Amino acid sequence: MSREPRTEAVEKQTGRLESFSDGVFAVAITLLVFNLQVPHLPAGAISVPALGSALLKQWPSYLTFMTSFATILIMWASHHGLFKLVYQADTPFLFANGLLLLLVTVVPFPTSLVAQYLITPAAALVCAVYAGVFVVINVAYNLLWWAAMRQRRLLHPAVTPRQVKRLTRRILLGLPVYLLATLLAFWNPYVSLGLCSCLWIFWAFAFYERSPSPRHLTGGQDVEMAPKSEA
Amino acid sequence: MSREPRTEAVEKQTGRLESFSDGVFAVAITLLVFNLQVPHLPAGAISVPALGSALLKQWPSYLTFMTSFATILIMWASHHGLFKLVYQADTPFLFANGLLLLLVTVVPFPTSLVAQYLITPAAALVCAVYAGVFVVINVAYNLLWWAAMRQRRLLHPAVTPRQVKRLTRRILLGLPVYLLATLLAFWNPYVSLGLCSCLWIFWAFAFYERSPSPRHLTGGQDVEMAPKSEA
Amino acid sequence: MSREPRTEAVEKQTGRLESFSDGVFAVAITLLVFNLQVPHLPAGAISVPALGSALLKQWPSYLTFMTSFATILIMWASHHGLFKLVYQADTPFLFANGLLLLLVTVVPFPTSLVAQYLITPAAALVCAVYAGVFVVINVAYNLLWWAAMRQRRLLHPAVTPRQVKRLTRRILLGLPVYLLATLLAFWNPYVSLGLCSCLWIFWAFAFYERSPSPRHLTGGQDVEMAPKSEA
Amino acid sequence: MSREPRTEAVEKQTGRLESFSDGVFAVAITLLVFNLQVPHLPAGAISVPALGSALLKQWPSYLTFMTSFATILIMWASHHGLFKLVYQADTPFLFANGLLLLLVTVVPFPTSLVAQYLITPAAALVCAVYAGVFVVINVAYNLLWWAAMRQRRLLHPAVTPRQVKRLTRRILLGLPVYLLATLLAFWNPYVSLGLCSCLWIFWAFAFYERSPSPRHLTGGQDVEMAPKSEA
Repeated sequence: MSREPRTEAVEKQTGRLESFSDGVFAVAITLLVFNLQVPHLPAGAISVPALGSALLKQWPSYLTFMTSFATILIMWASHHGLFKLVYQADTPFLFANGLLLLLVTVVPFPTSLVAQYLITPAAALVCAVYAGVFVVINVAYNLLWWAAMRQRRLLHPAVTPRQVKRLTRRILLGLPVYLLATLLAFWNPYVSLGLCSCLWIFWAFAFYERSPSPRHLTGGQDVEMAPKSEA
Repeated sequence: MSREPRTEAVEKQTGRLESFSDGVFAVAITLLVFNLQVPHLPAGAISVPALGSALLKQWPSYLTFMTSFATILIMWASHHGLFKLVYQADTPFLFANGLLLLLVTVVPFPTSLVAQYLITPAAALVCAVYAGVFVVINVAYNLLWWAAMRQRRLLHPAVTPRQVKRLTRRILLGLPVYLLATLLAFWNPYVSLGLCSCLWIFWAFAFYERSPSPRHLTGGQDVEMAPKSEA
Repeated sequence: MSREPRTEAVEKQTGRLESFSDGVFAVAITLLVFNLQVPHLPAGAISVPALGSALLKQWPSYLTFMTSFATILIMWASHHGLFKLVYQADTPFLFANGLLLLLVTVVPFPTSLVAQYLITPAAALVCAVYAGVFVVINVAYNLLWWAAMRQRRLLHPAVTPRQVKRLTRRILLGLPVYLLATLLAFWNPYVSLGLCSCLWIFWAFAFYERSPSPRHLTGGQDVEMAPKSEA
Repeated sequence: MSREPRTEAVEKQTGRLESFSDGVFAVAITLLVFNLQVPHLPAGAISVPALGSALLKQWPSYLTFMTSFATILIMWASHHGLFKLVYQADTPFLFANGLLLLLVTVVPFPTSLVAQYLITPAAALVCAVYAGVFVVINVAYNLLWWAAMRQRRLLHPAVTPRQVKRLTRRILLGLPVYLLATLLAFWNPYVSLGLCSCLWIFWAFAFYERSPSPRHLTGGQDVEMAPKSEA
């Protein structure tokens, strides 16, 4: 009986925070489409080949659109995963979450910066800015997790130390890789951008590896679901 | 008792995924309005007939706005229908859903492409791109459903094989039609666009046919509601 | 016991529809801000009085922004009120709701049309379009309510005939007024726009008159809450 | 038993209002990113130093983006805090909330006004407008709280007079400060903007001070949670 009310409180306290965060993620990810601009051709020069080649020339837009979309999607999935372990929010946690959201809404800006300047002499700068934003996002992510887990204050009582350690490691992992991508930009912008484009595929697999198989769920042994299925 | 917790888990695991997806659908469908541009007339030439004819000349914008809106709406309804049968998410399902959302957010782009180039010599290309995007969306939809139903891993235990077969057929149906629309664009762009515009009306009726009548709902025989009303 | 599951089904079936609709309303109402454009002054001519007068000259933007915002807000409140009486959705209802949402997302377009052409010779046309959109929205609203109440198929069992009659009357009321505003636009655009601007204040009071006083709520006699408090 | 249904009613009546408000806050905060514009350089003049200096010159955009983001975030947190104490909505409350939302969606406008005119002779005006909008928002906030608490009509029965007094004082506090910032703009725009930029940090700490420590939560003595944990 002393357990039930506390579990209930989890939903109450972080529910509106999660739905607000979801809203920001959803809007930010959808605004990326403004990166895809309809090419403007002079009225006399409009033809299928002319428009076709104008559309193909915009490949940096398509590439960065997909990379940014996939990266925000992974960030959302990670945010979701982190909040599953958290049962309440305090002020530092709220502000770490706010910082993360600010950076998520910023993503469309470096995305269109790369789209417009990737095939110009300023490519090094825009790719460094692009990867640099992900470095800062990663720092914000680490801050959020640190705010949640310090002295285990905000974590659900059923979260195990092994789960904490695993997520800590997983979140820290991105930092050196995005730092590397930022530095690489000044050597070769395309390699830097390629690294950012590949990273989300890596996250997908890292995510996959720890994803519960449906079998375990009913057995109550799945780490992710433990807090909920035990209650 | 072994049934109850599992049913509870349905809400928990796909709840935030659904609300995030709803957010993306809602934003993408609302951003379509940017397709409707206020015509700019030179200050000296502003009059009721001049503005009226400028507004009427934008009919491709209105047509594609309505077609895209209706298509995203049907996609949302289908997404909603599919998620009713799913009781949990694994990584392939999450990423198939991510791909679908990416394509949903893309829709405003080919929509404004058609709006701007429908009455130009590049009409064939833009109509092919428009229908082509719906081909890819249909493929993503099939992927999502396949991720959900393979080995029945993610489906709610109460979903019947007949329901699975029916939805599989329904989702596959769109593929050849949108492929045809894509090919037709190179023969006659208007026929291609007309086919896309008509398709959603067809979906509406296909959807209607399988929609439960209110009478059946309380009897517990409705296939859609079965998982919930049985619990 | 035969009542409980049915009540539960209300939440399930219209829950995601409501949250999707809320998302569309929220995005559409927020996009209205794009109507407020920062004036561009030539670099040499920037001063406090110059910018101040440029900002004041934009008063049609501010007026239509506020009118459109208030109107969408009232529409959302009415949508909310209507859905309180509905306990499930069928296909005609879904599509009537879709039509209403389409028109809600359209509102930013006539809004910026009026903002740009109110103080030009084309004022009559843009004010007629503006009021005309609200006529069509009102028709969509009547359709939605008709889809909900025909043969009482989708209404909550506890909804009384008096409630149905009252809402029917309230929804029909707007139709002649917006029709009048549309026609008035060709006689005097300012009167037409003024009528639209005043109407939402009228809705607010109409809404107020029927709004339950907190006292009644716990007594279970409030018509709006009846379905819920009885269960 | 007479208590339970009333508590249930809280969720029902303000649930959709909160989620709609959250949607508006989430969209408005995300639209701020449009303040960050990609600089356009002539094709021949593109280089890392040229783009770098063009990006650095946009510092007013970055500063106002962050200030507006943080301020909307705090406003959302306060909105959230206020709604925790409210158990139902009447019409004046709905319209006070509507006014607040209107002003929240307006924020991107003065934000881009400051971004474009901060380093011009019109700086005084745009900073006064910027701070002035926050004055009006603060008034709307006071109205909302007044609508909620007058005669304790809408407050949850468990809310204590001390809580009411505390929140009243906290909300009134912002009014003189933003008024001061508005007046200061005509003396020194930078001081005015700096005051606005610092204020949200102050709100964060004011917020922190009253934030419940996790310890108290289970003891049921936390003021914020009291209504929920007692039920």
